[in-house]
Amino acid sequence: MPNIPEGATVAMIEHRVPFFETDAMRIVHHANYIRWFELARIEWLDRYDEPYKDIYERDIHYATTHVHAEYAASARFDDVVQIHTWLEWVRGASLCMAYSIDRGDDHLVSGWTEHAAVTGDGRVRRIGKENRERMKKHALATPSIAPQR
Amino acid sequence: MPNIPEGATVAMIEHRVPFFETDAMRIVHHANYIRWFELARIEWLDRYDEPYKDIYERDIHYATTHVHAEYAASARFDDVVQIHTWLEWVRGASLCMAYSIDRGDDHLVSGWTEHAAVTGDGRVRRIGKENRERMKKHALATPSIAPQR
Amino acid sequence: MPNIPEGATVAMIEHRVPFFETDAMRIVHHANYIRWFELARIEWLDRYDEPYKDIYERDIHYATTHVHAEYAASARFDDVVQIHTWLEWVRGASLCMAYSIDRGDDHLVSGWTEHAAVTGDGRVRRIGKENRERMKKHALATPSIAPQR
Amino acid sequence: MPNIPEGATVAMIEHRVPFFETDAMRIVHHANYIRWFELARIEWLDRYDEPYKDIYERDIHYATTHVHAEYAASARFDDVVQIHTWLEWVRGASLCMAYSIDRGDDHLVSGWTEHAAVTGDGRVRRIGKENRERMKKHALATPSIAPQR
Repeated sequence: MPNIPEGATVAMIEHRVPFFETDAMRIVHHANYIRWFELARIEWLDRYDEPYKDIYERDIHYATTHVHAEYAASARFDDVVQIHTWLEWVRGASLCMAYSIDRGDDHLVSGWTEHAAVTGDGRVRRIGKENRERMKKHALATPSIAPQR
Repeated sequence: MPNIPEGATVAMIEHRVPFFETDAMRIVHHANYIRWFELARIEWLDRYDEPYKDIYERDIHYATTHVHAEYAASARFDDVVQIHTWLEWVRGASLCMAYSIDRGDDHLVSGWTEHAAVTGDGRVRRIGKENRERMKKHALATPSIAPQR
Repeated sequence: MPNIPEGATVAMIEHRVPFFETDAMRIVHHANYIRWFELARIEWLDRYDEPYKDIYERDIHYATTHVHAEYAASARFDDVVQIHTWLEWVRGASLCMAYSIDRGDDHLVSGWTEHAAVTGDGRVRRIGKENRERMKKHALATPSIAPQR
Repeated sequence: MPNIPEGATVAMIEHRVPFFETDAMRIVHHANYIRWFELARIEWLDRYDEPYKDIYERDIHYATTHVHAEYAASARFDDVVQIHTWLEWVRGASLCMAYSIDRGDDHLVSGWTEHAAVTGDGRVRRIGKENRERMKKHALATPSIAPQR
């Protein structure tokens, strides 16, 4: 079953596994799930904060500072997987998303990522107050699988 | 400086950053460092245990079960980076490698990965005694950045 | 406008450009469009011949023998693109698909790929008669952008 | 044998095939060879024209406008391949490179790519006269496998 904490504000996208994401073990290469996290994260921002494209066009980027993933089972070519994501916490200049990747009732991968808000030249910047307030409403009261900072 | 614990048996490979590993932030996309871990891991096995190609041809695979990465700074197009790796621990059917990715004296990324020995059809299998004994000599006495299991 | 010949039996998929497909020119890296061809090709087979997953599970693969792509304009992060594909021709053990990648009315990329039917160990095999007959009905009378063989 | 025309000024790089470049056919996915072309192209520019990093830092890019590849045989995990490249022709604002990818005496892939010199915002720009003159000395008298323009 998906590994989603109670109270989470979840965005989900479905993804059909392309052949080019498989490797010679005939499963999806483990680095691709890290990319899938990104697909869902952008969907979450679109729905609950602000389209990431708009943030990006103001030259603000949520640069990835931590990645953690635990693999329980593997996706294979042509599987349809669900990538769930929610906000664990948001702070002045950083945020943490967590993920559950599933193939129906089969849980495949859990993970979390942390991000720092930076400008295009890499300097840390506070997340805009409006964005932060909007996100805070959707954060978990207590982080589920990510460390508190 | 590279983030390497004392006493580690380290393999290192150099990698020149190709254009196709960059993203629209003009830095290397964070998922690519997870792939770089793999490059170094295979080099380590070649040097200190047994060429992974030989293991693979016996239909044994070190399937990735955990990935953890912390990003301190970014690599850019055409940078030459050093990917260091060492064995944190080895058990009956699993092992844990850790990594320091650096650009000379600039430390970029630290991380660790855990792997389960599996057959091509995904069943867990003990690591061959010879391989395990050989690896054990190179494991750290106490894990440095990875959790003990 | 999409670059699609009259009489083509077209499958189309939409694709939203993920951040990880961009490069430091802030456009989609040119090798990714070759991957997108594959996404559409598999959709075409599903709709007009037989799900590629079923073919794959019989250990038959349409190994790529030629790739050709012409780039007129670039996709960018978060664009929604349409990948159109159709069958140019099919022969005893090979087939040729062509592609038009578009962002609405903006034509981005045209191309074609040829494939040989092979078994998992790389030996060429005739395409099953049933599959070949089914595909033939959807082939162009005269190839549009690919060379006749 | 490598498929290199007489008189070509060739740059070559060796590449050891990482696991993550393989696919579920247990061979290198065909789109990766297009990326390998880029690795060799950058090496060629470094050696015979000007480091591409320097060109890139002046905000000039050789955007890819055509890709063509013909696959004769496949590379597999841990193979060491040689990627040869040379200049077919150079014109005012474009250039054409060709490639032979080989595993020792086994020829794997032939191909060519065309590129337009553009600024970061995508406008075509003449290649600097100095660069063009320098490259011209290394161009083939008559293109070998690429079309003349």
